[in-house]
Formats: sequence, structure tokens, C-alpha cells
Amino acid sequence: MKKNFAIIGLGRFGSSVCQTLIESGQEVLVIDKDEARVNDYMDIATHAVVADAQDDEALKSIGIRNFDHVIVAIGEDIQASILVTLMVKELGVPVVTAKALNEYHARVLQKVGADHIVHPERDMGIKLGRALSSNHLLDYLDLDDGYRLAEIDMTDPRYVNKTLDELNFRSTFNLNVISIRRGKEMIISPLADQVILPNDQLLIIGETRFVTEFDEKMNKTK
Amino acid sequence: MKKNFAIIGLGRFGSSVCQTLIESGQEVLVIDKDEARVNDYMDIATHAVVADAQDDEALKSIGIRNFDHVIVAIGEDIQASILVTLMVKELGVPVVTAKALNEYHARVLQKVGADHIVHPERDMGIKLGRALSSNHLLDYLDLDDGYRLAEIDMTDPRYVNKTLDELNFRSTFNLNVISIRRGKEMIISPLADQVILPNDQLLIIGETRFVTEFDEKMNKTK
Ligand SMILES: Nc1ncnc2c1ncn2[C@@H]1O[C@H](COP(=O)(O)OP(=O)(O)OP(=O)(O)O)[C@@H](O)[C@H]1O
Ligand SMILES: Nc1ncnc2c1ncn2[C@@H]1O[C@H](COP(=O)(O)OP(=O)(O)OP(=O)(O)O)[C@@H](O)[C@H]1O
Ligand SMILES: [Ca+2]
Ligand SMILES: [Ca+2]
Ligand SMILES: [Ca+2]
Ligand SMILES: [Ca+2]
Repeated sequence: MKKNFAIIGLGRFGSSVCQTLIESGQEVLVIDKDEARVNDYMDIATHAVVADAQDDEALKSIGIRNFDHVIVAIGEDIQASILVTLMVKELGVPVVTAKALNEYHARVLQKVGADHIVHPERDMGIKLGRALSSNHLLDYLDLDDGYRLAEIDMTDPRYVNKTLDELNFRSTFNLNVISIRRGKEMIISPLADQVILPNDQLLIIGETRFVTEFDEKMNKTK
Repeated sequence: MKKNFAIIGLGRFGSSVCQTLIESGQEVLVIDKDEARVNDYMDIATHAVVADAQDDEALKSIGIRNFDHVIVAIGEDIQASILVTLMVKELGVPVVTAKALNEYHARVLQKVGADHIVHPERDMGIKLGRALSSNHLLDYLDLDDGYRLAEIDMTDPRYVNKTLDELNFRSTFNLNVISIRRGKEMIISPLADQVILPNDQLLIIGETRFVTEFDEKMNKTK
């Protein structure tokens, strides 16, 4: 079902959300007080308006309450971000997602009614930090309830040139192997007699603590 | 193996990378020209230095060449980000990761020697945009070579109250089901006779185009 989105603030984050929504065939109105930025999105967004979103008359005349979802992507001006979030909620927008600069900002946004809060820089920083502090964990996805999916680079000599059965993956590490990437080849749902070769990339799933344990076990041998 | 990291720039991104590396037990030097920001990280980072990283004498006296990995997390001052990346590479740092503001910036960073380039705001914008434009795709992880892992919310009546076998998941959609989350329960590697219930969250893996196709198929019924 198509939804009507409005994005307030065309910084790097807001403009990337806009572009992605448009590519997915959604209707997107963009609002920024900076005319040059609005001009850049004139031909990309469905509608583009120059306005200071702190002006409630401007928001009303745009008809902001008719949008299904408003994304407040103002960053540095915390006061504006808070005020605008409050106003769009009070004007009746059902779902508002707001970008936060830090934890205090996030808490205020929640109090004034934001339904979802995002921390783009913090979250990507955590992601990069985790990737850099491990030699084996290439990428991961956190599922709810303490489960994690992770791509592991198999370089530890103790764990290669053995079958999954010999390694006893499931019972030794409490992890399941979903797939093995070997150069250009992708082996999905490998069988127990599959041999792990050096530099295979294993996609594993399990409780977060077991994924971390496995990664740390391998680090120690280096 | 522990590595020595240096982070130049304590904005939201750089400081989040710092915090995550420290939590993982790494050694981290942080550099910022803003004294207040450096003071905030005095007790968090291993070392914290006030310096303008565009000053090559300062970089030399810090001994930047002895670091395994430098992260240039300067954003808005593109000229500084480019110059600093060039200097740390020329001073002999083996791995440099730099934050880019846009595609042109990224290309220059690559030309001056950056080994990895990150776009935190753009990437999180894409992620949010994709999540918002789909009713079913909760989260996903892109593997290399065109494979994608995705969490799908099963609400389409045509696809629930049937077993995986009846749905013929693998041959109909070219997708594999890795796990099913049902409330607090997590069913890993479900068998063919597993029934899909409404609101089950399926974790699937397959080629990106098949994941997208499946998500779009479900959207159409709404
Ligand atoms: N009151 C306002 N009304 C409309 N637009 C606004 C308002 N305040 C800020 N903006 C716009 O929001 C955009 C993003 O804001 P800003 O650059 O401060 O955030 P940022 O956190 O640096 O963003 P990013 O990191 O995503 O680039 C800018 O284009 C700015 O012009
Ligand atoms: N030449 C420099 N030497 C040292 N530090 C610098 C230099 N230039 C900028 N910085 C620092 O880098 C940090 C991040 O820069 P800036 O705020 O411009 O980026 P940003 O993209 O807005 O970051 P973020 O979105 O992660 O908050 C700031 O704390 C700033 O003081
Ligand atoms: Ca900005
Ligand atoms: Ca900034
Ligand atoms: Ca930013
Ligand atoms: Ca990857």
C-alpha cells in the first residue's frame, strides 16, 4: 500500500531517506528552509517546499496532517527538531520518526510524541567500531530477543579443513551455519559433511552471547 | 589481536566509533581541535589530544604513523577531511577509513589513499527508507555477491496457516527460511512440516532480487 511521506530537513540523512522512498515508488514531500537544498530535490521528490518548519502556519498550509508519516531529519538545531516534532504530532500526524543528536535529545523527542527515534551517526559508529574490533566478524544483524546473525571469516587454523560434523558446530558453539560463501560460490544450508576451507565466510545464527563467544575464541589464537 | 586505533574528529560518528572500540577492549587515541570535545573523552579514550589534524607537525609529534588504523571522522570540513586523509597515508598509516559527505567527496578520498570509505547518514537513510517503503521487510543484511538476508512479517493471509512444504518456499520463491520468530519463541532451522502462523517473523535468505520479489508480492494484496 502506498503511503504519503513528508521529510523535514534535507541534510545527508533526510535526502537519503527521500531518494530511497522515491526509488521504491512512494509519494514524498520534502521541506527545508534552505532554498538551494529544496531546488536540488525539486525533480526528485514528489513535492518540494521551502519553509521554516518551526512556523505552524506554514505546516498547516502545507496540510501536514494529511501525511501518514513525517520524518523530522533536522540535526544540529535541537530546539527546532523538538518543536517541529511536537507540532506535527499536535497537528495529528499518525506516525513521526525523528532524528536525534544524542540520548538527551532522544528522550525529549519521545516525551513530545515521536513514535520512532533514529541515531544514524551513533548506530553506524557502533557498527564500524564492532567490525574493526574483530578480525573475524565481517557483518551482523541483530534480531530481537537476543539473537544475532553474523558473517565470520574462517582463518583460524583450528577451525578449517574440517567438516561441520567434525567441528560439531551446533553442540560445541550453540550456533547454526546458514550459508558458506567461498569466493564467488554461495553454499546455502550446508550439510553436515561440508568441509570448511580457509577464508570461507560463514553466516551463522545463534544467541548473541554465543556469537560473541565464538568470535572471541578465534581471536585468541592470533 | 589488539590493534592501535586513532580517531580524528569527535562528532557523533567518531565518538560512537571510539566508545564501541573502547568497550571491545581496544586502544584508542582521539584527536579533535575542539578542546571541550577532547575533555569529554579524556576518561573514555586511552589517550585524547587537542590538535588541528591539518597540521602535519602535530600529526608527526603524536606519532600517527605508529597506529594500525586511523579513522578520519571529520564531516563538514571537506577540505580538512581530504588533507588529513592524504597526510596520514603519506606518513605511512597502513589502513585509513574516512567518512564521506557525498559521492564526490568519497571519490577524492579514495584518490588520496583512503582504504575504506563510510557514509553513515546516507547508509542509515537508505536503511530507513527501505524499511518505511515496505510493510513486510523488517530488517535485512546484504551479503556480498547479490545475496540478502531479510526479516519478513507474515501478515498476508495467502501465506499463513500453511506449512513451509505447502508453500513450497524454496522452489516457488527461491528463498530459504532460516528461522521463525513467534512472540518470544525462536524456531531455528524449521522443518518442512512447520506451519506459518499470522505475524510470524520469518528470517529468509536468497538472491536480493528474489527477496525483493517476495516482499513486493505480499505488498500487492494489501
Ligand atoms: N526549522 C527548519 N525548517 C526546515 N528545515 C530545517 C530547519 N532547521 C534545519 N533545517 C534543515 O535540516 C537539514 C538538516 O539539518 P542539519 O544539517 O542541521 O542536520 P545534520 O545532523 O547535520 O544532518 P546530516 O548529518 O544528515 O547532514 C538542513 O538542510 C537544514 O536546512
Ligand atoms: N582539522 C581538524 N582537526 C581536528 N579535528 C577536527 C578538524 N576538523 C574538524 N574536526 C572535528 O571533527 C568533528 C566532526 O566534524 P563535523 O561536526 O564537521 O562532522 P559531522 O559530519 O557533523 O559529524 P557527525 O555527523 O558525526 O556529528 C568535530 O568535533 C570537529 O571539531
Ligand atoms: Ca549538517
Ligand atoms: Ca556536526
Ligand atoms: Ca551528521
Ligand atoms: Ca558483508
